[in-house]
Amino acid sequence: MFLKNCWYMAGWDYELIDSKMLARKLLNEPVLFYRGESGKVVALADRCCHRGAALSMGRREGDDVRCMYHGLKFNAAGKCIEIPGQEMIPPKLGVHSYPVVERDHLIWIWMGDPALADESQIIDFPYLSDPAWRGMPDYIHYESNYLLIVDNLSDFAHLAWVHTHTLGGSEEYAYKTKPASVERLERGFRVTRWHMNSAPPPFHRKVIDNNNNVDRWNVGHMQVPGIFFLESGFAPAGAGAEKGNKEGAKEYRNCQFITPETESTTHFFFSYLHNFEVDNYNVTLSLHDSLIEGFMEDKHIIERQQRILDEDPDFKLLAIAADGPLSHFRWTMDKLIAAERQQQAVPQAQEVQRNKSPAVAA
Amino acid sequence: MFLKNCWYMAGWDYELIDSKMLARKLLNEPVLFYRGESGKVVALADRCCHRGAALSMGRREGDDVRCMYHGLKFNAAGKCIEIPGQEMIPPKLGVHSYPVVERDHLIWIWMGDPALADESQIIDFPYLSDPAWRGMPDYIHYESNYLLIVDNLSDFAHLAWVHTHTLGGSEEYAYKTKPASVERLERGFRVTRWHMNSAPPPFHRKVIDNNNNVDRWNVGHMQVPGIFFLESGFAPAGAGAEKGNKEGAKEYRNCQFITPETESTTHFFFSYLHNFEVDNYNVTLSLHDSLIEGFMEDKHIIERQQRILDEDPDFKLLAIAADGPLSHFRWTMDKLIAAERQQQAVPQAQEVQRNKSPAVAA
Amino acid sequence: MFLKNCWYMAGWDYELIDSKMLARKLLNEPVLFYRGESGKVVALADRCCHRGAALSMGRREGDDVRCMYHGLKFNAAGKCIEIPGQEMIPPKLGVHSYPVVERDHLIWIWMGDPALADESQIIDFPYLSDPAWRGMPDYIHYESNYLLIVDNLSDFAHLAWVHTHTLGGSEEYAYKTKPASVERLERGFRVTRWHMNSAPPPFHRKVIDNNNNVDRWNVGHMQVPGIFFLESGFAPAGAGAEKGNKEGAKEYRNCQFITPETESTTHFFFSYLHNFEVDNYNVTLSLHDSLIEGFMEDKHIIERQQRILDEDPDFKLLAIAADGPLSHFRWTMDKLIAAERQQQAVPQAQEVQRNKSPAVAA
Repeated sequence: MFLKNCWYMAGWDYELIDSKMLARKLLNEPVLFYRGESGKVVALADRCCHRGAALSMGRREGDDVRCMYHGLKFNAAGKCIEIPGQEMIPPKLGVHSYPVVERDHLIWIWMGDPALADESQIIDFPYLSDPAWRGMPDYIHYESNYLLIVDNLSDFAHLAWVHTHTLGGSEEYAYKTKPASVERLERGFRVTRWHMNSAPPPFHRKVIDNNNNVDRWNVGHMQVPGIFFLESGFAPAGAGAEKGNKEGAKEYRNCQFITPETESTTHFFFSYLHNFEVDNYNVTLSLHDSLIEGFMEDKHIIERQQRILDEDPDFKLLAIAADGPLSHFRWTMDKLIAAERQQQAVPQAQEVQRNKSPAVAA
Repeated sequence: MFLKNCWYMAGWDYELIDSKMLARKLLNEPVLFYRGESGKVVALADRCCHRGAALSMGRREGDDVRCMYHGLKFNAAGKCIEIPGQEMIPPKLGVHSYPVVERDHLIWIWMGDPALADESQIIDFPYLSDPAWRGMPDYIHYESNYLLIVDNLSDFAHLAWVHTHTLGGSEEYAYKTKPASVERLERGFRVTRWHMNSAPPPFHRKVIDNNNNVDRWNVGHMQVPGIFFLESGFAPAGAGAEKGNKEGAKEYRNCQFITPETESTTHFFFSYLHNFEVDNYNVTLSLHDSLIEGFMEDKHIIERQQRILDEDPDFKLLAIAADGPLSHFRWTMDKLIAAERQQQAVPQAQEVQRNKSPAVAA
Repeated sequence: MFLKNCWYMAGWDYELIDSKMLARKLLNEPVLFYRGESGKVVALADRCCHRGAALSMGRREGDDVRCMYHGLKFNAAGKCIEIPGQEMIPPKLGVHSYPVVERDHLIWIWMGDPALADESQIIDFPYLSDPAWRGMPDYIHYESNYLLIVDNLSDFAHLAWVHTHTLGGSEEYAYKTKPASVERLERGFRVTRWHMNSAPPPFHRKVIDNNNNVDRWNVGHMQVPGIFFLESGFAPAGAGAEKGNKEGAKEYRNCQFITPETESTTHFFFSYLHNFEVDNYNVTLSLHDSLIEGFMEDKHIIERQQRILDEDPDFKLLAIAADGPLSHFRWTMDKLIAAERQQQAVPQAQEVQRNKSPAVAA
């Protein structure tokens, strides 16, 4: 049960170079992505309407795609425009074409009703195209439901235990820091934590030239359906960063996109950007490697957690005080999905029809 | 849901050399095949009636087989003829023995009611034992339902797209050829296609010594439950092959047997025979390699197609004009299976009994 | 459907050296085993009550364990004793703690109602800690239900067929030996077999210095829920061992513990002990290797048998005369499980509660 009428991050623009036909399942639906000759990014149901062959095994022709089983050709709107050996093409023959938007090196897709796709709902993360910031986009495939990854990012106290030797730095983080503020937003939450006068954590220590104590801040912003932006930084301890003095601070901007593949698997996209030594590729690489190391620590725990939960559907989780943001987000998602289901209850016939005789955009 | 009362091709005779105990699942039933000392081919349920051990892990003794778990011995009719350490053998103790017929290097099995097994229903493919023709029998295992493979062979226009660089030769085949005739048969179909005045396709080019244009014909004959015979040839372009003049032609005979293993996996047997240079093993090998190459192109598409169809049981395929033979075959199978089910509705108790207390042939 | 209120063998003591956090699933329940700093063996549900993370990925602290996801700490009784960053700990927060007993190098666990756990019900196998006997404990993982392994040990005639060249020695064993006595016990059975005046079987021949004929005895004792003790030996043929003269005999004591992991997988623990040349490690190793070789022969047959049975739930096995002990054991298990279910029918609410809000021992 996924939220359909919202924008999902579907991939990095770099994944479509060299005329790549990218097959990616999203919310249980097989989707083919490619960049047409005109430069336009196209997203079509990755299933020929004739015999169900994968269009991603087909051939790009201009902005169109030809199924290489029996040669049917579809345009970017999903309409069948050629059946070799047959003159008449039934007008309803075609495949679903998904609204896509390319922005800040991100490819966004709208999985629900195309008529509701509103580009203005896409949240910008301008750091990705700002030359003052440098990062290295990447991808990890998760064997877990997407919400377990959202949960993970909802309580940064886990830095103390999961990431002690990588992103966290010490177990102190769990005892000495508390959320300075927790904002419950209409479609997410924002949590701010400060860790004052502590040693720099290993990932940061690797790219700076001293071991002086720092004041560290993390401002995590989670948004529906699984978009996470983190603003963080390290200032000299006691310099007053918490009051706004960022002099001498080194800052990071981190985006993570948690997009369901199926109920039990997830696409996890991320980039960790720095605003210092942006032309020193070793800094970028070091941060990227540290992030991967940390994310693997999460993945190890979360995938095992998923298997444990799978084995006993009756198991009831017990909340602790720190679960406030997590609970708010799950409640928000449940509410949005329920509302969407209720709206669909009336024109449901139309929804079913997509599988039978795809509506083809003009 | 398979058709039971018909002959299925179960294996090549060469698979039973050296006293091989061949375990092969057919229509979801585990079957043990072996050639008894007398030369007779035996097919028994591959499951000891005592504790369910695999008889294929047992030992051939003459025409009999001994289960190597507790030593029970069964004869070729499936009757238990020894229980070590026990004198009385309950007369009903035994396993199902399947009717088998060996002909033209093929082993045919009857999966339904043995009383209905009529050897005269087996279709001959005499080229396999005719010294004027030479081929190399082989086998491919498919991760798909058998009907997707039947579908594939029902429309040779796919040669243009799937096999352009192997068996097809050009995309022209999809545009310039149309079925010259489509015969709907009581238990199958026959489709004839001619491709006039074209370059020889790669597989044929490899075994001939010139690149002159040819007139090519393909006569495909599909029969229940998944037996495909292809008569094809290449004659000098314009020589009048389509009017019966086969002078200078090089011909092929191809048999393919598509036998269900389970609902989602299939045994695919084939041999591609040529009537020229039959003593030149390099020609036989070259054709065999080309066929494998082409069949792998099919397998790649079809197995992916199966996974796509599996993921969305509500997906409705949309037919095009070329699907006539395919639709006729599927309709024929459905009709035959429905008729068989209806007949079985009365003496169903007997069918169930096979699992409980196998009927043993005298 | 497992018997819960009984002791299961859960592991060898050597599996808990070096502060090992041992994750082992038993009867479908994930369990964490560790030896606390005090030396006490602890068995806890391997699932943090907070978010379901695996406690086996946590950290031992004294006799306690800390979940390394968000830092919750549990004592040996399963009670949560710390939530970092939170002062109040809800009293019901905790995980199930299983009764465990360590004895004769074996770790026993009680999977049912802790209030019923009665240590006196544990059956001793003192040979494991008796210096007059020497063996090498080991473990095999089975892809089959535990009862198929129990079945296997219920009829030693299988030695003739499965283990002819390893543990059995000849097919004669199936014809010339019959159970001298079969005792049906309240919670198991005991079967005695003698094989008089035969060549020593390969595993025994490897560790003795002559090939003289022997009188061989096997006394197998199977107990609920899957505990097998074998007393066996080889005496000079004709010396009267069957009348009590064990002079010149070489004896073995073998224990096998068959503990369900899931309905379709099993933990199989064993040790084969000898009372001669106990300080000759080569003898111990040779016997161990022979046992492994023999057990692999069983595993090969049994795992295939499981797959065959899985494929056709309607298949009815047919008993032979030798199946008496097997049938008695299955009948005993069924009866005990049914009785346990009936007892639980009343306070079932309590059982369900374990998953929701674990009862924590004081």
